[in-house]
Amino acid sequence: MPQHPVELTRTLEEVLNLTGIFVFGISGALLAVRKNFDIIGMTVLAEITALGGGVIRDLIIGAHPPAAFTDIGYLLVPLLATAVTFFAHPRIERIRIAVLVFDAAGLGLFCVSGTVVALAHGLGPVQAVVLGVTTGIGGGILRDTLAGEIPFVLRADSELYAVPAILGSAIVVLTAQLHVYGPAAPVLSAVLVFALRVASLRFGWRAPQPRP
Amino acid sequence: MPQHPVELTRTLEEVLNLTGIFVFGISGALLAVRKNFDIIGMTVLAEITALGGGVIRDLIIGAHPPAAFTDIGYLLVPLLATAVTFFAHPRIERIRIAVLVFDAAGLGLFCVSGTVVALAHGLGPVQAVVLGVTTGIGGGILRDTLAGEIPFVLRADSELYAVPAILGSAIVVLTAQLHVYGPAAPVLSAVLVFALRVASLRFGWRAPQPRP
Amino acid sequence: MPQHPVELTRTLEEVLNLTGIFVFGISGALLAVRKNFDIIGMTVLAEITALGGGVIRDLIIGAHPPAAFTDIGYLLVPLLATAVTFFAHPRIERIRIAVLVFDAAGLGLFCVSGTVVALAHGLGPVQAVVLGVTTGIGGGILRDTLAGEIPFVLRADSELYAVPAILGSAIVVLTAQLHVYGPAAPVLSAVLVFALRVASLRFGWRAPQPRP
Repeated sequence: MPQHPVELTRTLEEVLNLTGIFVFGISGALLAVRKNFDIIGMTVLAEITALGGGVIRDLIIGAHPPAAFTDIGYLLVPLLATAVTFFAHPRIERIRIAVLVFDAAGLGLFCVSGTVVALAHGLGPVQAVVLGVTTGIGGGILRDTLAGEIPFVLRADSELYAVPAILGSAIVVLTAQLHVYGPAAPVLSAVLVFALRVASLRFGWRAPQPRP
Repeated sequence: MPQHPVELTRTLEEVLNLTGIFVFGISGALLAVRKNFDIIGMTVLAEITALGGGVIRDLIIGAHPPAAFTDIGYLLVPLLATAVTFFAHPRIERIRIAVLVFDAAGLGLFCVSGTVVALAHGLGPVQAVVLGVTTGIGGGILRDTLAGEIPFVLRADSELYAVPAILGSAIVVLTAQLHVYGPAAPVLSAVLVFALRVASLRFGWRAPQPRP
Repeated sequence: MPQHPVELTRTLEEVLNLTGIFVFGISGALLAVRKNFDIIGMTVLAEITALGGGVIRDLIIGAHPPAAFTDIGYLLVPLLATAVTFFAHPRIERIRIAVLVFDAAGLGLFCVSGTVVALAHGLGPVQAVVLGVTTGIGGGILRDTLAGEIPFVLRADSELYAVPAILGSAIVVLTAQLHVYGPAAPVLSAVLVFALRVASLRFGWRAPQPRP
């Protein structure tokens, strides 16, 4: 009988994961449209944005092949995101806030899942935070670099993006260290990352810059 | 007696592989000349262009060390391409069409060999196509990104490059799925990729772009 | 009793390693300041510059997780470099020559340690040189690419950087091939790389460029 809740969690986790992949794929395909790329450029950028962070994570922990190459859904969902963006990009641009909100959800899911995988592979606490954040921001860094832009997470004019991810990953690690890790920890952490990111966008919170 | 044909195939495969590495190395060294890099810049760009796609493939399937670090020829051939380009680059520029044709051959060989390796490592059909295409286009993406250019495979003004690779990889996978895979499958697929790429250059075929 | 010298060497090696990581971290954080990034951009660039070359090396030889994710010092030292740069960057800019000198030391240490690791993993002589040089220059290539610059090691207006690394790695490999490898080999090689790099800066030595 205890399998049902676990299965529910599994299904939920999978749905959230694919949602994160979808919205990251949308952000890659949208940037490709803005850069006047063709449908191949859209597809490549959607796949790399959606799966790049997870592939880097899996290469570092030595999971061969990376999850992106095991479950076929991981590769197909960015294709779906590309197709949707190809036909509906003017409308998506208009709901840009929605995209940012979904992207915040993807960030929360990815950094938390990356942290959990890191802990499961025996990485130390600081290492797990770094790997979790890398999973969350890696795809976006690859997306911007390939499109010829400075990765937005590095720029001073971007609202807080890595900071929420760092906090969310740190909470997952802390609950594990204090032996109070349960299903609530990743969920609450992902929600916190999401809320902090959305609040940063809403209130224009930015990370400090050194004095010039 | 059945060893002879196999050995012939092996040797042929090796020759084709090294040819692909050589022409990809030329394309890297040539771009370095155009960007006014020095001989170190030429060498680094030649090596990364020629071997980058295969290294990414091997990291993903978990082949340690990557093939580029096992057979010494893989590292030396891009050096040869650099030396040739260093002294003969004005003449190579004049036979630019020849370089494009050789590059098309390299693309065919690399995407087919990447697909075959992926299938041999138990990847699924879609995953094998993605890994094959990655092997074919990965080196060029790294080359352009390091040289400060938008990867040409992403751009709308580039003739079909990834599309032939996708078709070629798909045919290899299809023949394997239908249990009709034999020596003819990779050869014909590579030839098809080559022919489609050359035809795209000749007739200016391009991938569709979303409406602005 | 023979443990003492070994332990001393170990400690010394660790100190030198962390020094190399620190100065590479400084160079990443400084570039971030020049590009007007915020503290997150500084941190990401410091970590990737300091650890990127070693992570690439470990992915290629199949060391999972990479050393950067095992010893916590590796991740913390770039944070320290970021903090120092955040508050003292105008003063660091003024001692720019000191940074270049330390960076030369980091280059020597990294390329030698990369070569030694490559030999220990059974790579061939040419492969070990390539992996050693990659370890030395990889972090800087990632730093410049992410910051939207052409990697300075590729550019013709940069003083010799990869050439000293190639020579240093080659000497390590040669002593191993001639069975005269001892503690002196890596130390002298690293010193040679350092001296050649500093001399290149002092006397403006550059690598040849192809005729235009």
